[in-house]
Amino acid sequence: MPKAIGVDLGGTKINVLLIDEKGNILARDKRPTDAEKGKDQVIDKIKEMILNVLEESKLGLGDIEGIGIGFPGIVDRERSVSIYAPNLGEEWKEEVPIGEIFSNFFDIPIELENDVNLIAWAEWLVGAGRGTRTMISVAIGTGIGSGIILDGKIWRGSHGIAGEFGHTTVLPDGPLCGCGNRGCIEAIASGSGIERYAKSILPQHPESLIWKISNGDLNKVTVKTILEAAEKNDSLALHIFNYAGYYLGIALANYVHIIDPERIVIGGGVANVREYIARPMREEFYKRVLNYMKERVSFAWAELGEDAGGIGAGLMILYK
Amino acid sequence: MPKAIGVDLGGTKINVLLIDEKGNILARDKRPTDAEKGKDQVIDKIKEMILNVLEESKLGLGDIEGIGIGFPGIVDRERSVSIYAPNLGEEWKEEVPIGEIFSNFFDIPIELENDVNLIAWAEWLVGAGRGTRTMISVAIGTGIGSGIILDGKIWRGSHGIAGEFGHTTVLPDGPLCGCGNRGCIEAIASGSGIERYAKSILPQHPESLIWKISNGDLNKVTVKTILEAAEKNDSLALHIFNYAGYYLGIALANYVHIIDPERIVIGGGVANVREYIARPMREEFYKRVLNYMKERVSFAWAELGEDAGGIGAGLMILYK
Repeated sequence: MPKAIGVDLGGTKINVLLIDEKGNILARDKRPTDAEKGKDQVIDKIKEMILNVLEESKLGLGDIEGIGIGFPGIVDRERSVSIYAPNLGEEWKEEVPIGEIFSNFFDIPIELENDVNLIAWAEWLVGAGRGTRTMISVAIGTGIGSGIILDGKIWRGSHGIAGEFGHTTVLPDGPLCGCGNRGCIEAIASGSGIERYAKSILPQHPESLIWKISNGDLNKVTVKTILEAAEKNDSLALHIFNYAGYYLGIALANYVHIIDPERIVIGGGVANVREYIARPMREEFYKRVLNYMKERVSFAWAELGEDAGGIGAGLMILYK
Repeated sequence: MPKAIGVDLGGTKINVLLIDEKGNILARDKRPTDAEKGKDQVIDKIKEMILNVLEESKLGLGDIEGIGIGFPGIVDRERSVSIYAPNLGEEWKEEVPIGEIFSNFFDIPIELENDVNLIAWAEWLVGAGRGTRTMISVAIGTGIGSGIILDGKIWRGSHGIAGEFGHTTVLPDGPLCGCGNRGCIEAIASGSGIERYAKSILPQHPESLIWKISNGDLNKVTVKTILEAAEKNDSLALHIFNYAGYYLGIALANYVHIIDPERIVIGGGVANVREYIARPMREEFYKRVLNYMKERVSFAWAELGEDAGGIGAGLMILYK
């Protein structure tokens, strides 16, 4: 069975996987990115990790079809160049000829793609999107990323930024977002958005269990402590997740009205919170979405977890 | 040069055009829909109008490539059946085999498509979208409709409802929309949305010129009377258009973040108001849209006016 290497270069971790056509993981290496140590360190580390995975599997370059690389930012696929990444440090805010760098070292096909597109690609091919032709994938973590599969192909847009769902506005005068605007869904319903909202309303709620669980320290309030309080039925914690879910439902209805997919696949770190956010999210979504769509679009939880990006990177080599 | 008939079936008017490959109009017939007189009346009238246009042009069925029909609602293109139209009366709220009806009468190819998709198709091929591969078209009239061209093809979505931009929420607790939800951009920035907003705030502004122009009668307040007041620098009238433009800018930034088009083509009846809405719209759009997109996406006014739907219907026959 044909095999490929998938690299998921993230802001905090690098995940290198050897996968087969079914998305099975045959070998893996995962290390911290240490982005602050600079670009060359990151590139050298990825090379080393790829060699390591091949060696462990007793394979040579001739045994794999190519290397797919997922990048946390904007890429120019045709030139195989990264354009801009917000989270990897200054050196990555200008073009890096990633394709060329790796082609010179590994004499096999190299492909570069945006990481959230690869999560969508993986979920569509071998995860929760199987059986559909058109789906959207939304990853809720520290930020909110999204990828779009239209009729069996990644939709990248005219300039490679399609699917910037995280920066769609749902509350025009809402909280400030990292992008500089107010009220983006990312500023409200991402992990960091949820934490910020919690910190903003906690002072008016001295009775909330969240205080106790966070040892009375606002700096220790995280999605995890809010979740703990919610599990004990703390009404403020439940409100905080309701708030995020409500706006997520609105933003997803907007998304569905534009794209008209068969399925919405939801994953990412905040998926831990699952039903606390999903219930109000679904409720508001079905309230907002046009009647015609109510029975025609379905929700599914992502199936591939943290490996989705790496699996998608490998599958990009194995499927066109 | 190959020719085709394009039919634009609207809620108030039917427009039948004979066009050539360049979208030139060679003959036309336009009549009121009189939807209240029933489905059969509408269908018979369209047949008559087509025959009339051919006769005027001294052409037979053999001289044209086919008949394209634009429908103001959801269609199933493959079966050439209309599924649902909100504005044509009860008989059109169930399936009508339009393709079959016209094929039985005219023995040439018949194609059926949603009308706003055809506006996008026409503007893309021979109007303000020329030269792009990917564009979105937004028609602001009594409602707000939109069509999407992705890489040279109409994007219809999985169930034929893609591009329902008018029903994306920009103000979660905003005014009630015809669709049953609150704060859809259609409820705020369409002609009827603008009029409703004006009527809601006029009572607090006895000094506004709009009162004078409308003879002190709230029922006579229309986009036209507000425009007249705005042209005389009436601050309330300017505020009303600013309000619509502001939310339109937000909604369009959201749209662009999802689709990533090269161009946004704006038309429809409210285009009369042009700069009064466009200035605040552009201002808010460029404030909200990601930096990377600011210089990469352009606005253009639609070029084909009220004939866009009919031209698009004919061009659907002539181009695949």
